[in-house]
Amino acid sequence: MARERLGRQAVDEAMTGLDGWTLAGDGLSISRGFTFRNFSEAFAFMTRSALAAEKLDHHPDWSNVYKTVDVTLSTHDAGGLTALDFELARRMNRYAGG
Amino acid sequence: MARERLGRQAVDEAMTGLDGWTLAGDGLSISRGFTFRNFSEAFAFMTRSALAAEKLDHHPDWSNVYKTVDVTLSTHDAGGLTALDFELARRMNRYAGG
Repeated sequence: MARERLGRQAVDEAMTGLDGWTLAGDGLSISRGFTFRNFSEAFAFMTRSALAAEKLDHHPDWSNVYKTVDVTLSTHDAGGLTALDFELARRMNRYAGG
Repeated sequence: MARERLGRQAVDEAMTGLDGWTLAGDGLSISRGFTFRNFSEAFAFMTRSALAAEKLDHHPDWSNVYKTVDVTLSTHDAGGLTALDFELARRMNRYAGG
């Protein structure tokens, strides 16, 4: 999948229909907080996301406190957002069931 | 396992021999950063730690960026450190192979 940095218009298009994610003010990353019913469900989500991340060779910056998972996605070596970030974001939304 | 908050002396004793962990200045939590060879190893460590956390019913605050995992442990409902924090810390050290 393309690791070229997306321009602002492509980013705006990709944001459309991507539920729950917020574009950073500098346009270089996207973030979303997920809340589950308990730790077990939160970590199940993280496990599915980790498998996807490894397969895409593209990894999230994320933190977990009990039933919440906060995720930030960016493609550091491209200096901003690429198609990979949006692909991983869409998959995470799917795994979270929303 | 005891969820009573440990006194300062008990905390100091528990810190002895607990490699790599730092006691917060306020004495209410302990933290350690772990670095692995890659994401796969980092997430394998997180998975074993998650199973232990669920079994102990005591969960870490943690974040992961590629091959690094930063962990903070505290027993929020006890308002500080308990035996559970040190038990989970020791297990995490073991899973990290150090």
